[in-house]
Amino acid sequence: MRQSQLFTKTRREAPSDETAKNAQLLIRAGYINKEMAGVYSLLPLGLRVVGKIKKIVGEEMEALGSLEIFMSTLQNKEVWEKTDRWNDENVDVWFKSKLKNDTEVGFGWSHEEPILEMLKSHARSFADLPRAVHQFQNKLRNEVRAKSGIMRCREFIMKDMYFLSATEEDNTGFYNKTIEVYKNVFDRVGLGGITYVTSASGGVFTDKFSHEFQTICDAGEDIIYVNKEKNIAVNEEIYNAETLEKMGMSENDFEKVKAAEVGNIFNFGTKKCEQMEMFITHKDGQKYPAYLSSYGIGITRLMGVLAEVFADDKGIVWPESVAPFKYHIIEIVSEKPEVREAAERVYKKLQGNALYDDRDLRAGEKFADADLLGMPYQIIISEKTVAEGKVELKNRKTGEAELTDPNSLQ
Amino acid sequence: MRQSQLFTKTRREAPSDETAKNAQLLIRAGYINKEMAGVYSLLPLGLRVVGKIKKIVGEEMEALGSLEIFMSTLQNKEVWEKTDRWNDENVDVWFKSKLKNDTEVGFGWSHEEPILEMLKSHARSFADLPRAVHQFQNKLRNEVRAKSGIMRCREFIMKDMYFLSATEEDNTGFYNKTIEVYKNVFDRVGLGGITYVTSASGGVFTDKFSHEFQTICDAGEDIIYVNKEKNIAVNEEIYNAETLEKMGMSENDFEKVKAAEVGNIFNFGTKKCEQMEMFITHKDGQKYPAYLSSYGIGITRLMGVLAEVFADDKGIVWPESVAPFKYHIIEIVSEKPEVREAAERVYKKLQGNALYDDRDLRAGEKFADADLLGMPYQIIISEKTVAEGKVELKNRKTGEAELTDPNSLQ
Repeated sequence: MRQSQLFTKTRREAPSDETAKNAQLLIRAGYINKEMAGVYSLLPLGLRVVGKIKKIVGEEMEALGSLEIFMSTLQNKEVWEKTDRWNDENVDVWFKSKLKNDTEVGFGWSHEEPILEMLKSHARSFADLPRAVHQFQNKLRNEVRAKSGIMRCREFIMKDMYFLSATEEDNTGFYNKTIEVYKNVFDRVGLGGITYVTSASGGVFTDKFSHEFQTICDAGEDIIYVNKEKNIAVNEEIYNAETLEKMGMSENDFEKVKAAEVGNIFNFGTKKCEQMEMFITHKDGQKYPAYLSSYGIGITRLMGVLAEVFADDKGIVWPESVAPFKYHIIEIVSEKPEVREAAERVYKKLQGNALYDDRDLRAGEKFADADLLGMPYQIIISEKTVAEGKVELKNRKTGEAELTDPNSLQ
Repeated sequence: MRQSQLFTKTRREAPSDETAKNAQLLIRAGYINKEMAGVYSLLPLGLRVVGKIKKIVGEEMEALGSLEIFMSTLQNKEVWEKTDRWNDENVDVWFKSKLKNDTEVGFGWSHEEPILEMLKSHARSFADLPRAVHQFQNKLRNEVRAKSGIMRCREFIMKDMYFLSATEEDNTGFYNKTIEVYKNVFDRVGLGGITYVTSASGGVFTDKFSHEFQTICDAGEDIIYVNKEKNIAVNEEIYNAETLEKMGMSENDFEKVKAAEVGNIFNFGTKKCEQMEMFITHKDGQKYPAYLSSYGIGITRLMGVLAEVFADDKGIVWPESVAPFKYHIIEIVSEKPEVREAAERVYKKLQGNALYDDRDLRAGEKFADADLLGMPYQIIISEKTVAEGKVELKNRKTGEAELTDPNSLQ
């Protein structure tokens, strides 16, 4: 992409009401636009990051055998009444409105009930199960506060997956397999080393009903206790003498850190299916409630966490797997046509993989923009590099630079 | 995709409250799920069709130089008040709700105002223009009636593109270029021969302020008058003696048909930018309002129109370009393992391009499902075809079948 064609401009300052570093950086770099508190639009570079995260997550969910669907935002009151979750006292984040005929409608803050309702009309027998479905979708939540930038929004993109099965064995098997797959996901987006599996109901060493994936991050809203050496962590809620004893560990083994929840998984057992009357016929001809588990990953939150944890004082530093582009070509404007020609050749070679700063700006402005935007590698092309038949390849993260043969880039 | 892994089941009957053929077929075939009147979710095969339509539309918009973005559903009242379109008397399809602090919010029925507001912070000078952006997004509209299946929904996916320029010349040039690109789009999705450009304000022979793209379709909500030979059409609103005279044509030249609006384009001139105070600095140092034009295509509506116009009495007939899969492999269950082996070989060869009915069902049920689902080509593999070292390749549309070498398929 030619930067001259990119309509977004970088800014020195974020909006004064934006206090979260992730949103400040992403707004300044032109990745997102703030529509109101807790609501952000995705601009071209931001949409590319989200697209890369979605691709990684989608590949991993499909490898689990899950099929992608796309549920509606508008929600049917009757479906949610079955679990008593239409009630604002039980769910305090609903946005609701009314049709012209006064029928109440909700806006999807979750899709657990509608997805189960939809699956009911397609699965009746044990032979129809197990099945997994997932979607990437905007969730709308009427949060009281929205202060963590795109890490806690009133509108955000989530990947939610649901696994429906006839037996507890299938359910537990899929649950445990997904824990491993989620580790792959966080490894692939670049958060592997700082993301921990925790359990809100008993630590990783139990097989209780829910687990969280927590990334160490100063802007996170959660507290976890980690042992980095053993790669284990404990949620604040259950960090107590009893838990430590069960683990055979002591307080000295753990470090208290702030963390952001990037994923969570729930095992509903048969409870949700009982409430929703999702019964299936088993081999004995009898009807039994099905087992349900659900699996979330905060897609736009991940973008915020990545921006937050890898930033330095110059700007964003994307991991290569989710960067909008691997390379940022910086053409140092020159009167010699060879410089432009060399830049165009490199751009053509790397097309699709490079953002090309072809603007008529001073080198200093281009460097500052490139550092703020955070592509993993900068390719600097100037009179000097052209004279040597090379380009300067600079690592955004380490700052290391070397002259290299442009033909070796890929 | 193996049909044994596809959780959706076909149905003999659509829901009794569903009167539109497109939705009846798509629900019966398991492409969509009805959440409530005018609200449908996309199931795996439906999402694939939508994905193919989006890909075609996206490629054509990018070829115009447009960059993809993704705006929020939640909308800021203040932005819409600038054009007096927050008012329910002026816009009667708003869904609205409130934040916890009583701030009113709307749900995006359109994104014209928010996109222009966003662009304001990135374009200040003539040198920043022209720019085009587009998105694919759920629009929420509080329609009084929703009776045309997925052709008129309370929630639907639309591609909307916006072109912002400093001069009338740029604006008109892009407008006219997009008319041609839209023709490509409708050709590519298979609707070329039955889609007409019309003008609500003066016929195709003028360059007035808006044009529509109308596809001949019995379930359409519009009336147009077409001359198929000359490939022109006139909207009902302006079909009168004056228009006909201007065109040098008579009533005898036109046929009255029902049509569905699949695309529309608007030229706002400078009006919207004046209302929104989107001024840019020209070469003379003075500020002038920018020019705006907008370009819509109903993505999910297109799926409905395609299902509606190409259906026959057996079910859906997808054009190859938007079909979920090009091929439907129908394995006629046999005790001879060679049949399964042959089917698996063909599936492996065509992977990604084929839905494979590997279910343990009677041939009649499989044929009926395949006809309902509407892949363009059916590949029938039975003891008989295996004995001859062939497969039967059947064209869903024409019904023509021939024995063919499986190695020739691609």
